[in-house]
Amino acid sequence: MPKPPVPSDLEEFLSQPNPSVIATSRSDGSPHTAATWYLWDNGRVLVNMADTRKRLENLRDDPRVSITVLGRDDWYHQVTLRGHAVSIEDDADLVDIDRLARQYTGEQYPRREQKRVSAWIEVDSWYGWAGGQSWGA
Amino acid sequence: MPKPPVPSDLEEFLSQPNPSVIATSRSDGSPHTAATWYLWDNGRVLVNMADTRKRLENLRDDPRVSITVLGRDDWYHQVTLRGHAVSIEDDADLVDIDRLARQYTGEQYPRREQKRVSAWIEVDSWYGWAGGQSWGA
Repeated sequence: MPKPPVPSDLEEFLSQPNPSVIATSRSDGSPHTAATWYLWDNGRVLVNMADTRKRLENLRDDPRVSITVLGRDDWYHQVTLRGHAVSIEDDADLVDIDRLARQYTGEQYPRREQKRVSAWIEVDSWYGWAGGQSWGA
Repeated sequence: MPKPPVPSDLEEFLSQPNPSVIATSRSDGSPHTAATWYLWDNGRVLVNMADTRKRLENLRDDPRVSITVLGRDDWYHQVTLRGHAVSIEDDADLVDIDRLARQYTGEQYPRREQKRVSAWIEVDSWYGWAGGQSWGA
């Protein structure tokens, strides 16, 4: 898999509010997946989760992740980002989840009573796939 | 996560040609993800890959997978299937990839020269998510 930086056409793709699935490793070594909002910010990836989520526990134990982003209009455009969490911090004022919610819904996050946590992911390698062929490499 | 069987409304969802992402574990314990076609067949899941794919190597080493299926019309409907490969076999006559291709494209698979491999996944547990709430449990 190529190393960063990600080419500009893939950056443009990653900047859209696409569906994505994040995988973490459970303590028994098996993979865990969940759909997630993400935000591409200058080569790093912000994700945010309720503090009750299994993937948060996994991330604290093993920061390595893989995120596959599917095109919101055409899921045959795909970018997978392999990386690791460089920070995991409480989103006490819901600033980060609001940023994600605005990206995806245009509005602030509705559930104000939730305790939420942000993770920033640094990308170690990536690959793009479009219509059955390598994209961007 | 609930155990099978999966409720009938989730089965109906899983029977559609939805986008999905499959996670396997690399030999170093980090997660690997890739978008994939899948086929729901009476509670088991068929996936198929070119024999050069990293996830095939991973699966042979460790059969445990997690698959998150996103609704093709509304990705806020999601089902995650945790399971393990119970068979990994050459798809010598491309019977299985044709079955998948017909489900997703209505036609047979176009690349007839590829060597492909099928894996059948048995589901150990599942969860559904719809619009920010648990679905089906």
